[in-house]
Amino acid sequence: MTKTPLTLLGLGAMGAALAESWLADDHPLTAWNRTPARAEALAGRAAVTGTAAEAVAANRLVVLCLLDDASITEALDGVDLTGKDVVNLTTGTPAEARARAGWARERGARYLDGGIMAVPPMIGVPDSGGYVFYSGSPDLFEEHGSTLAVPAGARYVGEDAGFAALHDLGLLSAMYGMFAGVTHAFALIRGEDVSPAAFGVLLAEWLTAMGGHAVETGKRLESGDHTTGVVSNLAMQAAGIPAFLDTAEAQGVSPELLAPFFSLVRRHVAEGHGDEDGAGLVDRLRVG
Amino acid sequence: MTKTPLTLLGLGAMGAALAESWLADDHPLTAWNRTPARAEALAGRAAVTGTAAEAVAANRLVVLCLLDDASITEALDGVDLTGKDVVNLTTGTPAEARARAGWARERGARYLDGGIMAVPPMIGVPDSGGYVFYSGSPDLFEEHGSTLAVPAGARYVGEDAGFAALHDLGLLSAMYGMFAGVTHAFALIRGEDVSPAAFGVLLAEWLTAMGGHAVETGKRLESGDHTTGVVSNLAMQAAGIPAFLDTAEAQGVSPELLAPFFSLVRRHVAEGHGDEDGAGLVDRLRVG
Repeated sequence: MTKTPLTLLGLGAMGAALAESWLADDHPLTAWNRTPARAEALAGRAAVTGTAAEAVAANRLVVLCLLDDASITEALDGVDLTGKDVVNLTTGTPAEARARAGWARERGARYLDGGIMAVPPMIGVPDSGGYVFYSGSPDLFEEHGSTLAVPAGARYVGEDAGFAALHDLGLLSAMYGMFAGVTHAFALIRGEDVSPAAFGVLLAEWLTAMGGHAVETGKRLESGDHTTGVVSNLAMQAAGIPAFLDTAEAQGVSPELLAPFFSLVRRHVAEGHGDEDGAGLVDRLRVG
Repeated sequence: MTKTPLTLLGLGAMGAALAESWLADDHPLTAWNRTPARAEALAGRAAVTGTAAEAVAANRLVVLCLLDDASITEALDGVDLTGKDVVNLTTGTPAEARARAGWARERGARYLDGGIMAVPPMIGVPDSGGYVFYSGSPDLFEEHGSTLAVPAGARYVGEDAGFAALHDLGLLSAMYGMFAGVTHAFALIRGEDVSPAAFGVLLAEWLTAMGGHAVETGKRLESGDHTTGVVSNLAMQAAGIPAFLDTAEAQGVSPELLAPFFSLVRRHVAEGHGDEDGAGLVDRLRVG
């Protein structure tokens, strides 16, 4: 069986990794990059074109992995997209994805947006844990899902073209919160006779064990029940806050990364929600 | 073989769970609580005393699980601690633990401080994943380690009596950072047609996969090498920050929980560290 041919625009670190994974799986590939030098590594294995328009003309399935949303306009405005299946893996916001879906529709193309939950070294590595969120045209995803699953697992999260980016940014936001907490934790032990490497192992083990908290929070938000079966409620957690702030000060660590969360907990407790777990904080973070 | 008899002061939720685990393991137990009613559940199974002094006099090994550090002074000032092995599981700061170690030494007692990484339902449940950090007298830990390991795994982290609390608060600080990130992430999808329960499963899976980041950070802090083999450097991460802030605003979510971390990243990049991974942020968080 012949593998689906496809076009890839953009050969940065991520685009190059995508190209290699499709080539390794025997997909005929047409590639274009704004800077031609980056395409040299594909010479003789992929069809490299001098213009984006030529690359788009070569195949129905067109994958975009460019620098940013503005680069898409720059590369493709004026290029005929009629009948094309455009899959946009360029990093962006839900708003950009939704606008880009409308832009593709006006040009007669089907559109799927993707949010890549992986770094380039994880692409094409089956057990790396990396995957891609997809949202937009269900028909496009159904038709090309197996091709899209070659570089990394493909997870479809809805017809709203913005949902892939929303899931992507949501998960990365949570990760940055975790990174902030990890930064604070390591700062506490600097200057003490504690091995950072050994402490890092303890931290990783603890955070991994606590990851299930997000499942619990999701269930509570789904049910709206924030108080049944709460083991460590917000009032108890609020009572413990001074120990964190005093210890940060004693260890010479700025509390700036954690103070806003503690402040949110205190406001929620002050308004009578001390018997809840933390799920109720989610709606308190919403503006207006 | 007879199990080591011990005294427990404090029968709150955690103290009661500890008591049950030692009784279930056939340790003779003497218990005291400021409010006598809380000791009733132990009647006939443990020796319940009317005063803290009587409880302390009954055994050499004395475990404290009181409300806070001030409660220890209240319960034990004037009580003879000569020759006692005091294990303090009362939640507190490293500074309180160090002061309490001196206080015990002056009274002729050996001292071990503990930081409990578990909630009461995890106590006495072998596979719960809960454990206790211990620091202080190595002789005390060696002699009573097996008794102390009955309620939950016992991990000794050094002679400095403050290290158990430092490890405890460090790990919990990282967890609160993760909770803050999870709160922000859920806030992004509220008002969208996304199931919080399904999103929570994706979040938990992602955060669990990313837990190893702390191991990497620990290794970099240990070696001092912040640039070799960096896959996604801080300059690239800083370039992505507007997508997070714009999306938060578009989704009606206050950026307050993540903005301080993004600000820290930007300051570090602005001062010429864009080629590093995030480990260098740790020392930037330290004051003076």
